[in-house]
Amino acid sequence: MKNMKYKSVLVTGGAGFLGHHLLFDLLNKGFAVRCFDLVKPSWITSDIEFIEGDFTSSQILAPAIKDIDVIIHLASTTLPETSNDDPQFDAISNLAGTIGLLNLAVKHRVKRIIFISSGGTVYGNPSVFPTPESHPVNPLCSYGIIKLATEKYLRMYSALYGLKSCSLRLSNLYGEYQRVDTNQGAVAVFCHKALQRKPIDIWGDGTVVRDFLYVKDSLEAITKAMLSDCSGTEINIGYGQSASLNQVIACIESLLGRKVACRYFPERPFDIHKVCLDISKAKQKLDWDPSTSLQDGIRLMIDWIKTGKK
Amino acid sequence: MKNMKYKSVLVTGGAGFLGHHLLFDLLNKGFAVRCFDLVKPSWITSDIEFIEGDFTSSQILAPAIKDIDVIIHLASTTLPETSNDDPQFDAISNLAGTIGLLNLAVKHRVKRIIFISSGGTVYGNPSVFPTPESHPVNPLCSYGIIKLATEKYLRMYSALYGLKSCSLRLSNLYGEYQRVDTNQGAVAVFCHKALQRKPIDIWGDGTVVRDFLYVKDSLEAITKAMLSDCSGTEINIGYGQSASLNQVIACIESLLGRKVACRYFPERPFDIHKVCLDISKAKQKLDWDPSTSLQDGIRLMIDWIKTGKK
Repeated sequence: MKNMKYKSVLVTGGAGFLGHHLLFDLLNKGFAVRCFDLVKPSWITSDIEFIEGDFTSSQILAPAIKDIDVIIHLASTTLPETSNDDPQFDAISNLAGTIGLLNLAVKHRVKRIIFISSGGTVYGNPSVFPTPESHPVNPLCSYGIIKLATEKYLRMYSALYGLKSCSLRLSNLYGEYQRVDTNQGAVAVFCHKALQRKPIDIWGDGTVVRDFLYVKDSLEAITKAMLSDCSGTEINIGYGQSASLNQVIACIESLLGRKVACRYFPERPFDIHKVCLDISKAKQKLDWDPSTSLQDGIRLMIDWIKTGKK
Repeated sequence: MKNMKYKSVLVTGGAGFLGHHLLFDLLNKGFAVRCFDLVKPSWITSDIEFIEGDFTSSQILAPAIKDIDVIIHLASTTLPETSNDDPQFDAISNLAGTIGLLNLAVKHRVKRIIFISSGGTVYGNPSVFPTPESHPVNPLCSYGIIKLATEKYLRMYSALYGLKSCSLRLSNLYGEYQRVDTNQGAVAVFCHKALQRKPIDIWGDGTVVRDFLYVKDSLEAITKAMLSDCSGTEINIGYGQSASLNQVIACIESLLGRKVACRYFPERPFDIHKVCLDISKAKQKLDWDPSTSLQDGIRLMIDWIKTGKK
């Protein structure tokens, strides 16, 4: 790429599933790429600069911000499912930690920051589907509240200190390189269990609905948000259509040509019934549209697990 | 009062200006009253139980929650004007501190919590006047962001753990017992300076508009919110009409029968241009309406300062 608006990009939390995809995508697009995370993953190549550390310490984070044009902030110390176990930790680590990141970004004259927020938690149980960004926000987990508060700090730093920013409210990502051995990420876990011929665990009756987005579709949204001029705003990034857990299982069964076993557990009080994001703002502001159907995405997921996750 | 819904009330931050009024008001209404604050004020009487400590430590706060029916949470470690000096401190002390308070309230089966939020900061610079609770919230100071995040935790604890709560978005309070020797609280400071024949300092040209509410009017709103059944919601508590700083000065001049000197300083980027709260929700849900005009309130303020602040 010639005449690039930005040269160098820092990805915090880059060692995770989304970070893995994003770092190589940015590299392919010609950016100098730096990854900051707790532990250096085995797949990091020599053309990705890696700095090891905990983002919640400004002192440790500071060297990672030097000479950076854009920060893409993925790092988080909590998950939606576990954040209510200790909301104080969530506030102290993620919120105060990200404020420290913003302070460093202002100090080092970073040009832009993209914050990865959460379309699946900030709205709580929405009353309108697909759910637009203007919908009331009443999270049922600390994770969502802290994401919201962080969005507000991004807006404030944009208004007061000129730090351009955009918060992307991502829906449920799935795809290659996702961990399959956790309770997190239904598509990956379900496919893995099905291929292993082990029963799939479901909280509730499987009618909960999610907006599943294929990870490679999200990459275009992130780089488009990075290169756009919009600032101090939030944008939903989802598939814009939704599927129940039972529909995901039916799709896996159809692709595998056999039934899979499920075990049903009681619904949890913080489980959101339905997520389906209105993505018209992303279409309009970022000229972005996802292209991978859930069936195609699940097929890619299954192929990746089958081929030994290379 | 007979057949009281609640017997015992804890006021955190009760040693401050609003707490002073509130404790005696609750006492007069027949409640057993406990005050928790950093330092015991001289005016605390023997019929008010006082526990000394920092609310941001759950360990220190815990004994204050025992045998309490209702908590009115006024305590804050920051002010709107100073919160941007160190937003990390704001998040760690006020947000994590209040989450600790909520955890204790659930553990000790507190029946209700009233949180004092901030009508002057949560909306940022509103586009609609008077401003209803449903207006977009984009604070320009950390104080406002943390108040918003706290409101969200109250809603979440109400939904998940049945802790009944209400957040009151108070406008600019003024009245007797307010500190006159700070930069906080325009009416009190202006009256004091005018009586001392010292110049009044103003940031901007004095056209900024505030919703000034006489403190004794706010007491009825707080006790009505305490006794009401509404939960998991936010309610504006203001005078519902607004006045510019220049109008406050004109009112003081009229009451004193002479001109007062003013010094004008540059506007600060986080100064909100206009605050005027829509109080129809408070009228409807709490059957509450303020009754003291700004002129009557300023007269009471001047009388109190003149008589040696007894």
